[in-house]
Order: sequence, then C-alpha cells, then structure tokens
Amino acid sequence: MAEASAAADLASVVQVSCGSSHTVALLDCNVVASWGRGEDGQLGHGDAEQVDAPRAVHALLGADVSAVCCGAEYTVAVSKQHRRVYSWGWGDFGRLGHGDCTDVFVPRLVDFFNGMAVKQVACGDTHTLVCTDSGELYTFGRNQNGQLGHGNTNDLLSPQRVAGLQGKVVTSVAGGAEHSVIATDKGEVYAWGWGRYGNLGDGDRQDRHAPAAVNSASIDSSSAGSVTSVACGWRHSAAVTSDGRVFTFGWSKYGQLGLGDHEDRLVPAEVSGLAGRHVVAIAGGWRHTMALDSEGGVWAWGWNKFGQLGIGSTEDQASPVAVSSLAGSPIAQLACGWRHTVAVGRAGQVFSWGRGVNGQLGHGLERDEARPRTLAALCRGAVNVARLVASARPQGGYVAPADRYAVVPSGEDCGGDAGVPEGLPDSAVPEMVEVPGVPDSSSTGLLGNGSGLAGECFSGEGGPPAKRQHVAAPAGSADDAAVPGS
Amino acid sequence: MAEASAAADLASVVQVSCGSSHTVALLDCNVVASWGRGEDGQLGHGDAEQVDAPRAVHALLGADVSAVCCGAEYTVAVSKQHRRVYSWGWGDFGRLGHGDCTDVFVPRLVDFFNGMAVKQVACGDTHTLVCTDSGELYTFGRNQNGQLGHGNTNDLLSPQRVAGLQGKVVTSVAGGAEHSVIATDKGEVYAWGWGRYGNLGDGDRQDRHAPAAVNSASIDSSSAGSVTSVACGWRHSAAVTSDGRVFTFGWSKYGQLGLGDHEDRLVPAEVSGLAGRHVVAIAGGWRHTMALDSEGGVWAWGWNKFGQLGIGSTEDQASPVAVSSLAGSPIAQLACGWRHTVAVGRAGQVFSWGRGVNGQLGHGLERDEARPRTLAALCRGAVNVARLVASARPQGGYVAPADRYAVVPSGEDCGGDAGVPEGLPDSAVPEMVEVPGVPDSSSTGLLGNGSGLAGECFSGEGGPPAKRQHVAAPAGSADDAAVPGS
Repeated sequence: MAEASAAADLASVVQVSCGSSHTVALLDCNVVASWGRGEDGQLGHGDAEQVDAPRAVHALLGADVSAVCCGAEYTVAVSKQHRRVYSWGWGDFGRLGHGDCTDVFVPRLVDFFNGMAVKQVACGDTHTLVCTDSGELYTFGRNQNGQLGHGNTNDLLSPQRVAGLQGKVVTSVAGGAEHSVIATDKGEVYAWGWGRYGNLGDGDRQDRHAPAAVNSASIDSSSAGSVTSVACGWRHSAAVTSDGRVFTFGWSKYGQLGLGDHEDRLVPAEVSGLAGRHVVAIAGGWRHTMALDSEGGVWAWGWNKFGQLGIGSTEDQASPVAVSSLAGSPIAQLACGWRHTVAVGRAGQVFSWGRGVNGQLGHGLERDEARPRTLAALCRGAVNVARLVASARPQGGYVAPADRYAVVPSGEDCGGDAGVPEGLPDSAVPEMVEVPGVPDSSSTGLLGNGSGLAGECFSGEGGPPAKRQHVAAPAGSADDAAVPGS
Repeated sequence: MAEASAAADLASVVQVSCGSSHTVALLDCNVVASWGRGEDGQLGHGDAEQVDAPRAVHALLGADVSAVCCGAEYTVAVSKQHRRVYSWGWGDFGRLGHGDCTDVFVPRLVDFFNGMAVKQVACGDTHTLVCTDSGELYTFGRNQNGQLGHGNTNDLLSPQRVAGLQGKVVTSVAGGAEHSVIATDKGEVYAWGWGRYGNLGDGDRQDRHAPAAVNSASIDSSSAGSVTSVACGWRHSAAVTSDGRVFTFGWSKYGQLGLGDHEDRLVPAEVSGLAGRHVVAIAGGWRHTMALDSEGGVWAWGWNKFGQLGIGSTEDQASPVAVSSLAGSPIAQLACGWRHTVAVGRAGQVFSWGRGVNGQLGHGLERDEARPRTLAALCRGAVNVARLVASARPQGGYVAPADRYAVVPSGEDCGGDAGVPEGLPDSAVPEMVEVPGVPDSSSTGLLGNGSGLAGECFSGEGGPPAKRQHVAAPAGSADDAAVPGS
C-alpha cells in the first residue's frame, strides 16, 4: 500500500458525473469512486446496495480511467490509455452496448471499442453516445424516438456508427432522456430523437430519427462565436459558443431554459441573464440547468424542489441565479443528476447539493441540501487513498440469476430489431499506440459536462496495484475479464 | 375520534396496489394508507418524503375510496360511492389526467370522471386506463408507442374514450410499462402499445396503436373457459380463464412467463406448471409474476434478485414455485411492485416481501425480505385506526413552485398533440345514484390485480370525520378541492 499512501496528499477529483440518483467521481490516483442508489448495478460494486459515501470501484482500480459518464441508472467509463470502454448498470434495450440486455453489476468491457481512441461519452436515460478522437459518433441502446440517429426506431444492442454524420467531425456530445445533441468542429449543431418540447431546436415539435441541423439563426445573428459544446437536460438542450454565450431550447415548465419565463422554445434562444459572463460549460439535470463561467462562477436555474440549484432556497428559478456560497471557491467542473448537483473546485474541493436521500450527495447523511456542501472525503489534501481503496468491494462479479442460463443474446431477447454493428472501416481502428492528439475533454451528457477537465491529470501508472494483487478471483464471475490487469 | 376507536378491532385491508417503489393500501375503515418512495408525490402526503411504514393519506380520509391503483411513480384512487377519481404523483405526459403535466403531491380530482361510475383503473409507467361500470374504456398519458389505443401516438393530458372498443364491454384492464391489455365480457382479449417482446400476443413484435385481438388459438384449444381477467408486468402479459388456467406472453428473460424457459412468446402459452390448480388472479411485477389459486395458495416465478418471489432465496424461477411460508395463510389478494410483492390474507393479514430499501415493505426496516413478512400494523385485529388517522399529514396542498406561475395548461406545455377529450355521450354520464351492478372488481395493472376484492367491504360512512374537522385549510393550496367533504 506504499504507493497509495504516498499519493494521499495530492489525490484529487478530476471529473464527476451524475445519474438519476447516483454519482461517480474520477480521481487522479487511478481510482473511480461511486455512491448513491445502486439498485440496478449502476455503482459497479457487484451488488445492488445503496452507498452514502464515496466507495472505490474495485474493477477499475488501476484501470487508467480517463473519463466517466452516468446515464439515468447506468455508468460508462473510458480508459484512453488502454483504449477501452466499460459500462455497467441497467442493461435493458442494450444501453450498455454488450450485445445483450443484461444488467451488469461490475464494470464490463464494451468489446466493440477495444483499441479505439474514445474522446467523449454521453448518456441519456436509455441510450449511449460514444465519440472517437477522430470525431466519429457511435450510438446504442433504446431508439423508440430515433435517439440513436440511424434513420429508424430500432434498438441497438451494440454500437453502430451514425452514418448521417459521415464527413463531420463531432467535437461535443450530449444525451437527453430520449434525444441527442452534438456539435461539430465547424460549430454546427445537430439534434435528433424525441422532440415534442422543441428540444431538437429545429423549429417544430417533431421527432427526428437522424441528425437534423439545429436552427442556428439566433446564434449567428447574436454572436460571432460558433458553438463549442452542447448539453442536455431531460427534455431540454443547451449550447455554449466560443465567446461564452449560452443558448437553450426545449422544455421550460420549470424555468430550465433560463429565459425568464416558462415557455418552451423551438429554436435556440440566448440566455440574456448571463450577458457579460463568459460561460465555459453547461450541465443539464432532469429539470434544472447549471452554468460555469470563465472565472469559476456558478449559475443555476430551473427546478429547485430539492435544493438542486444550491441557492439556499427550494424556489424554482426561471433566470440564472449565482450560487453565491461558492463565490470564494472558483469551480472547474459541474455535473447535474436528476435532482442533485456536484461541483469540483479549481483547488480540488468537491461540493454536492440537492436531493440526497439515496446517498447521492456522498455525505453519509441521506438528506437534501439546499446549499453546496463540501464533500470532505474527496477534497484535495483530505483524500485518504488507502482508505478509499480499501472501501472497494473485491467480491465483484455478481451474475444475475437470469444470466446464469445459456440465453443466446439476440435482437429478439432485447426488444428486437437490434442491428448488426456496421462493419468498422480499418481507419476507425487505430493502432495500439498512444496518440497525443486532443486533450481528453471528458464526458458529458444528460447531466454531465466536463469540458476542459480530466485527461492529462493522472499518471496512468499510479494506483494501488498492491491491493488488487491480494484479491481472489470471485467465484462464478462472468466479469473477470473486466478487471483490468487481472 | 369515537368512531375511529370503535372500528379499531375490525379494521382491515381490503385492497393493496404497488408502484415502482411505493405501496398503497385501502382499509375498510375509510382510510387509504401509503408508504415507500415519495419523491414524485406518489404517496399523496403533500411532500416528497420517503415513508417506511403505513401512513394515512389525509386528503382521502373519509373519501369512501373503493379502489386504489399504483403506476410506476403515481397513484389513482376511485370512490365508487361518490363517483370520483383522484390521482397524484409524477404528472409528466398527462398520466394524471388533469389536463396538464403537473406533478401533484396530494390527491386531486380528475374532473373528467366526476359523476361517472368507474369499475376499474389500471396504470402503466406513464399511462392510465379507466374502465366504467358499463365497460367503456378511457385512457390518458404517454402514448409514444400507441399504448393509449387511439390509433396514433399523441400523448393525452385528459381522458379520451378508446373508440376502437366501441360496442365491446370491457371487464378487465391491465397496464404494462408501455402496453395495455383488456378482456371483454365475451372472453376476448385485446392488446396494444409497445410490442417488441411479443407482449401484445398477436404473433409478432410490432407496436399496435389501436386495440388488436390477442391470438387466442392456444386458449381456445386448451380450455373451454374464456378469459376473465388480464394482468401485465413491465413487458409481459397474462390472462386467466374462467376455469382457472393461466396464459402468458411477451418477455421471458427472467423466466417471468413461467413456461420453464427464458424464451419470449409472441402468442399466449399455457403455464403448465399450474396444471391442476384453479388460478383466480394474477399480478405482474417488473420482471416477476405472482398467481393466486382458488384455495388461497400463492405461486411465484420470474425475477427474484431482491427476494420478490418470497420463496426464501434470490434465485430466479422460470416455472411457478409455491410460496410455502404462506401455506397456512390463505391469501385473498396479491399485488406486485417493480421489485416487491404484497399479499392480503383471507383472515385480514397483510404480508410484504422483496425489495424494501425505500420503505416499500412498510416494516420500518428499509431492507429486503426474501420471505413474506407480516405487516403487523395493517393486520386485522391489530390496526390502530386512531393512530393510523393521526399519522395523516394535514399540511397537504404542496404546490410546486413551477405551478405557482400562471402557466396555461396546453398541449404544448406537455409534449404537444394533447387531444381534446372526446365529447362524452349522455349515456356515459350516469345519474348520481348508486348502481348495484357488478361488484367492484378493484384495480389492476402493472403491478396490481385485485380481482374479487374490495367493493362491498366498507360502509362508506365510517372514517374519522372528527380528525378532518380540525384541519385548517392549507395555506396556498391549490388542492383544497381534492379534500372530500371539506
């Protein structure tokens, strides 16, 4: 445990992501920690228990994870160094990308991506988007509203490239409950899937089964900057421009568009309440939205029933409100869950607030917080790596009884119409060498937007291997292969 | 409180229903009690708190409720005597039938049904089915897979009669996650909505947007009896015939069809493991199924991860297994939640088992139980009506901040395409007199099936009016009208 202890003083969180009621943090000591609701396996600890404080995910100890992203009740992790993608949690409709619909209780490799350089992952409720370094987009999972973007409504158990974006270089990806939004290197924005609140931004309320250009007239006319990143809430969407403006569209019943009213918008509208601020990132929750400005200031609007805006009240807000209690703590990254919010400070602090009854705030209290509360166990200088590693549950390898039977995975097993993954062009399978390339821009999605974080923050060789070597292989585990290095 | 105390020795539960993580019980002392997860208002106590033991719903004290039915995160109650229907909980997509998408934290009248004699209610995840005494079916809520049965995929914020069943007399109604199944007085079975697992029973995996006849060849050839009741799990369906046979169809990954394997069925197949038993009722959970036979015996099969089959293990079962620990306690009614099960005994006992971490078992323990555990507080002879009534939270009337704004409910507010309710024919609005008619067959649905229970079990004039009279009208409540008699 020498390595682990030595790193203790420096260890800190480099990225967080939030699901419906769970939270996952990536630390630069080669540890992924998760907490909150675990019923569907989304915590990756091998069981279905709720956890109210950060616990290291055993299967990912030393896995050199570079980004994490939570869907509603599942989680995806990327190791850029090893060119691997893992997923776990609720598996119905193929959202985990394993070729079947099985629930998974410890991180399992998504074989399709072995050897591929993945830049960013975004998750919706039941569908997943994976973007490669070269800007190709792959999607899988539920597709009843066309949220996979393949021109149909067939669910996909395995990743398939979005052909409609061929020739485009995708730079930012976001997943709403049942819709998807992306930006390209040309600053274009495309959206598809469920669209009845105007959340596709193309001027009507129709679903789209393939990428459709978002109406960017308002963006062009009001800003010289092009869109650099996108984010989604449950039924709303947001785009951030290179000059720091924010545009929102879609559902606004709770004020989640931040436009001062409660009217849906069918095309992007600028959040004028942020005028004068240079916004660098947006995160979308179920019905709330958070923005981060270039000075590290945090702005919040939308649904606030559980205090998820962090402003000390539980009143909804239809316009951006500064999270004043964070004024002295410039923030580096924000993530929104369905009802909670987590922030990582530039100085390595971690704060969480909003709904907490499922332990998703990590304070061990299982109660709501209407103001940011310091999650001391994960703050730089206070992280006890040895203890964190010791919190990992090596038993892992839970296999659902249903999966002990020899059910042949098939489209029929999972809702049918599961397409065969497209043949992967040779060019899409890079050699197993490290490409410097773009800095890892981390995960984003319903809920997560980690622009500008993670990536180069950890060594990729640290971590606590000693711990892992003591671990006996779990009996009957079908997931051993997912334990890196074992 | 005299009335309440006097009734204490006799009070007992006449019907239960379970949602994703909550439970609602109807007692014959004119009390509706709820417990479990309350985040979306589904408990009706005016807040979003989790409750781990039965608590009376204040707004329904003395409301002469005759049936309750839980959807995933919402609840519906019927008062046959007063010809009223109430709903509360998560309101998105119009599943509550109030003409908008508002979340509701205390029971609110569904005005559409005022004065109508409602026989049965069934709830899916996001859609609701209401059947009148005369056998007409009304549906509302989400409709992206055609689960409302109107020949389209437009969501409905208010109830609309299913025209495709005109001329049919509906006798049994069930709601799956996104599909619907009904039986008629002729023993016919119709299904519609999401169908990719074969759960519509018409021989393929297509969705149907209007009622389509279930292929009943197997039923006709194997049984002289016609179908008398139907039930749904999340993605599977079941039918019970007059001679006590059970047929299942749809998803079977977890063995939830009880056919000895894990293969989906596209048309009804008889559960041969129940041969020789006369089954009188079926209840469907998320991935498990429970059957009740004419001797009060309980049979279980399907997913068992949290002990929801009640057989002492957590192994899934692909064929019916007797719940042996209930052998000495003949059961009168069963209800399944997503991960838990509740049974009411002929002698007035109440048992619950399966997932319990959200308090949905009502034992105050917030833990799972792999065997039926007596819910003492609700067993006949042990019910303390005064205490139960005192547990009600009179504050009620929670109004979500979003709803304090003057947002005009409209289709646009809620996903669009919300239809105007059909004009109600005069014949569908019976006079305000008590019709003896069919005995109330109680609620059924994803989750609930209470055939043969409730209805004539309570006086309709009992209850604890003294308690209500002390209650001050909640400040700012928009729901006062929902408090009967106030």
